[in-house]
Amino acid sequence: MAKNITNPDKDFAKWYQDVIREAQLADSAPVRGCMIIRPYGYSIWENIKSNLDERFKETGHKNAYFPLLIPESFIRKEAEHVEGFAPELAIVTHGGGKKLEEPLVIRPTSETIINHMFSKWINSYRDLPMLLNQWANVVRWEMRPRAFLRTTEFLWQEGHTAHANEKEAREETLRMLNVYTDFAENVAAIPVIPGRKTEREKFAGAVDSYTIEAMMSNGWALQSGTSHYLGTNFARAFDTMYLDSNNEQQFVHQTSWGVSTRLVGGVIMVHGDENGLRLPPRLAPVQVVIIPIARDDSARAEVMQVVNGIRNDLKQKDIRVDVDDREGMSPGFKFNYWEVRGVPLRLEIGPRDLQEGHVMASPRNKPGRDCKFTIPLESVVDRIPELLDGIQNEMLDEAIRKRDARTYCVESLDDFREAIVNNPGFYNVWWDGDAEDEARLQQETKATVRCIPLEQQEGSGKCIMTGRETSTRVILARAY
Amino acid sequence: MAKNITNPDKDFAKWYQDVIREAQLADSAPVRGCMIIRPYGYSIWENIKSNLDERFKETGHKNAYFPLLIPESFIRKEAEHVEGFAPELAIVTHGGGKKLEEPLVIRPTSETIINHMFSKWINSYRDLPMLLNQWANVVRWEMRPRAFLRTTEFLWQEGHTAHANEKEAREETLRMLNVYTDFAENVAAIPVIPGRKTEREKFAGAVDSYTIEAMMSNGWALQSGTSHYLGTNFARAFDTMYLDSNNEQQFVHQTSWGVSTRLVGGVIMVHGDENGLRLPPRLAPVQVVIIPIARDDSARAEVMQVVNGIRNDLKQKDIRVDVDDREGMSPGFKFNYWEVRGVPLRLEIGPRDLQEGHVMASPRNKPGRDCKFTIPLESVVDRIPELLDGIQNEMLDEAIRKRDARTYCVESLDDFREAIVNNPGFYNVWWDGDAEDEARLQQETKATVRCIPLEQQEGSGKCIMTGRETSTRVILARAY
Repeated sequence: MAKNITNPDKDFAKWYQDVIREAQLADSAPVRGCMIIRPYGYSIWENIKSNLDERFKETGHKNAYFPLLIPESFIRKEAEHVEGFAPELAIVTHGGGKKLEEPLVIRPTSETIINHMFSKWINSYRDLPMLLNQWANVVRWEMRPRAFLRTTEFLWQEGHTAHANEKEAREETLRMLNVYTDFAENVAAIPVIPGRKTEREKFAGAVDSYTIEAMMSNGWALQSGTSHYLGTNFARAFDTMYLDSNNEQQFVHQTSWGVSTRLVGGVIMVHGDENGLRLPPRLAPVQVVIIPIARDDSARAEVMQVVNGIRNDLKQKDIRVDVDDREGMSPGFKFNYWEVRGVPLRLEIGPRDLQEGHVMASPRNKPGRDCKFTIPLESVVDRIPELLDGIQNEMLDEAIRKRDARTYCVESLDDFREAIVNNPGFYNVWWDGDAEDEARLQQETKATVRCIPLEQQEGSGKCIMTGRETSTRVILARAY
Repeated sequence: MAKNITNPDKDFAKWYQDVIREAQLADSAPVRGCMIIRPYGYSIWENIKSNLDERFKETGHKNAYFPLLIPESFIRKEAEHVEGFAPELAIVTHGGGKKLEEPLVIRPTSETIINHMFSKWINSYRDLPMLLNQWANVVRWEMRPRAFLRTTEFLWQEGHTAHANEKEAREETLRMLNVYTDFAENVAAIPVIPGRKTEREKFAGAVDSYTIEAMMSNGWALQSGTSHYLGTNFARAFDTMYLDSNNEQQFVHQTSWGVSTRLVGGVIMVHGDENGLRLPPRLAPVQVVIIPIARDDSARAEVMQVVNGIRNDLKQKDIRVDVDDREGMSPGFKFNYWEVRGVPLRLEIGPRDLQEGHVMASPRNKPGRDCKFTIPLESVVDRIPELLDGIQNEMLDEAIRKRDARTYCVESLDDFREAIVNNPGFYNVWWDGDAEDEARLQQETKATVRCIPLEQQEGSGKCIMTGRETSTRVILARAY
């Protein structure tokens, strides 16, 4: 086990902090609740960004940029919205050396300012659908900060779209939920359950909120992305109307959807192990690290020639490869350095390997000497892409297996109350409760309704809270 | 001339606003001084970003992210820094429903917070150089806002580096100035004069500031990027020290450097003409637009087959190509639409063109029917890359010619006073003045010392302000 990293089974919260520190992902800022994203952590976010950005553009969205500062009066225009966000706002009262006539809020999200502009830009049905996204920072005052998961400032993308009718807007809402699901599973190797939020858990100002819920390796849930059907709520508050083909004024139907830097926290907590981070190849800033091993200068020259050749060939194939040829550090130190950082595949090359015509490969997802294997020198470059794909798939499979092993059914609140303490995980239960039942559930068990999965099984049963017969199942879990 | 666009010779400021509106680059925000960057404007910024980001990474820099909110006390730690920035700060006094114990400022730039972290991360000479960059938004309260050029919030990158000694830090300062120069000339097709700022014009907290100065087509200057040697000023204020190889504590020597969304304003004002925007191909979101021309459905099917073939082949070559097949709009409307947006090359394809086996090409940098030409269908895909390179080079050449034609020498303040009014441009003059002379110059002529060019000619002459003999020449101009 890596020194300086707590065993996750002993203290998961401390393990999480240890990994963030040892892999140099982030650091805490002088302002409470804020964080510094260090280069290695930021490069994971850059990979998340570029991957999602491509998917957004493929589905017809364009990036724009809306201002950080929003007049306080805007936030108050949509009743549920202000109720939800008022307690979390950061307020600018002075600017340019003077007290402002109207205080400004730092955007907690941008529905209001975007609707203000949509009202100006959208006139007729020909202007629809309007499909925008922005990559931005937002601020929501955080009382219980936790690196990546809950920070006062965080980075995210927020998609905002306007449509001619409910049908198209609802299709968009689910389209983007699917984009998130696909990204989570096929890039981040995180299996997720797409579902609808309950009334109590939905976005402040939405008609319906959808979510992808992932299970962390301690059995807790992480809401990893959300997509909202906003109906005409903001359109009515901001008079966002268009002239339809019959020359009649109609409110637009809207959506918004976002993922944030908390996804980095999800990657850590789904894949990390007692030795630190483990990164799925498609997200890893460094996919392959090559460690040349040589005791003297002549061996070193010989080894480096081969190493540089492999490096260049891998770069040609768009593999993100790094060579750790730092001097004055032992191979063991370097192994640990890259292991903590979760690099998916490590190659070692020394003089004896050259003699035997192979390199030694260690996949990060299966630690331990037993899983090391050799690759003949002449085929190493060709084999790396399939090896990385293999690691990617194995990591997703492992995460699915772990999640399924921690997914349970319970029939009664009494059973659940005990089970969630002894076996944290996802609990699939019959549900027919309302917001009050949810509040009571949370008070008694610290668990919440994570979502009403889109995929429902046949049959019916008695609601865990009300005892009423219902055909709806939900997922209960403790959540970050 | 495009309707809705003022002639730039009549009213340059209004022309600038017209182009921004008609090309849908930006819109004004409800908060004075802020702007919304619309998708087309933002895509120009995305191209600037990706191009520069690659250059930063090639020169060894890594991206990170530092917080938006900085304790007010941090800004006060470096005396010149606070004097320079205090009047422009936006202050957060309330957060999470409470008055804050210490007000926070929204970052106007990040030297202070970054030095706070550098002090923690840098211990020994082995940690140096530390080469970071961040892409972020900053806020500086703006009394005379102008879209892209001066906005209360703007987007930029800020590089921050720490080095073991002055020599390495000064080398870095000039290295990054060179990166900016190369980018401006070879990507944005904007010729620039790299030079040093005077004491009066330098960054608040720097030892030396360097700049690249570009000439807009009205003869005014735009400071388009800056690179600062900070010496040990911030290191002393924040105790950023390292243990050198002799086991002695030393202050780090630092640099910072940045370009911002004001570059988009520079692109508009260097290249734009009476018909709108003109974009250099390497920055253009759309490099080639194809306009199919067909009066009936059967002609349309035939034309679209060829158009789609060309589009796909160009995409294969990584050319950014768009097909405007919108129905219900005349070719003339579409020509204007893409002309205002400055797309470098327009291709028209109609049934007659197909019969004659060619497409009609119109380069945006040379408007008018005379400059249209035909390209044989079979070679169109092969020729586009060289045509775009040709347009790129022509645009740089044209900008150099225009700048050189507006670059003058004057010998006396009296001559300059008149000349700068009648012939706005760059004035190359002998200079030996101090900050007071600069203030007087600005008061009398509204011009400032833009820079002391790195490239100086031989010889000497009398300073335009003091009459003292000097071997230094500077550039005077009116500036944005």
